[in-house]
Amino acid sequence: MLMAAAMGCDGLMSKKVKRVGMVVGLNPKDISDYKILHSDSNPGVRDLLNKYNMHNFSIFLHQIEGKWYEFGYYEYTGDDFEADMAKMDAEPCIRAWLKVCGPMQLPLKGEKSWATMEQVYYNE
Amino acid sequence: MLMAAAMGCDGLMSKKVKRVGMVVGLNPKDISDYKILHSDSNPGVRDLLNKYNMHNFSIFLHQIEGKWYEFGYYEYTGDDFEADMAKMDAEPCIRAWLKVCGPMQLPLKGEKSWATMEQVYYNE
Repeated sequence: MLMAAAMGCDGLMSKKVKRVGMVVGLNPKDISDYKILHSDSNPGVRDLLNKYNMHNFSIFLHQIEGKWYEFGYYEYTGDDFEADMAKMDAEPCIRAWLKVCGPMQLPLKGEKSWATMEQVYYNE
Repeated sequence: MLMAAAMGCDGLMSKKVKRVGMVVGLNPKDISDYKILHSDSNPGVRDLLNKYNMHNFSIFLHQIEGKWYEFGYYEYTGDDFEADMAKMDAEPCIRAWLKVCGPMQLPLKGEKSWATMEQVYYNE
């Protein structure tokens, strides 16, 4: 109780958000199809992202030294990141989704899919 | 009124947020200093980001094909992005900050600083 009081109400009440930044290559021949799959009108796996506590999810696209890369950002609001990711990966709908999207992506050297980046700054 | 009713309360009341993703190279010799400058304990230009409606600002660091890059994400909540950015750029504190951070960065070909990326996906 004393510790909780010392932390203040904010420290006690607010839930810790894990901010994830990630990067993966994208095959230039698949850019158009990738955009269609991720368009607002396609439900895709949006319900599963929310089910496993992944929110405020953006993907950006940019070319670096002649190659295309996707940059993902989202906020994980659950209590067990590893467990939620494992459960999501086992969903048949995610497996079907990755069967389509996976081959479009070109993982960085040593990676199997998205590479997680190191967060070096945050400001509310 | 009819149009507003058709949009629903959310469409009427909620403010449009502009999500910005950006990328720039980082000189490997400056990584350590860059991290110190951006540490939680350094106030830096945090107050100015908020003054000009830039929130939920993260910077991530990752290596791609042997070179280091920073990836920035933030949410702009103001009404005039261009005007706010111009006003912020004119702040003496930002100018001093950029005099230190700018030389650490290696802009992509054709860019002067951060390159703005194309957003291709969003999910709440």
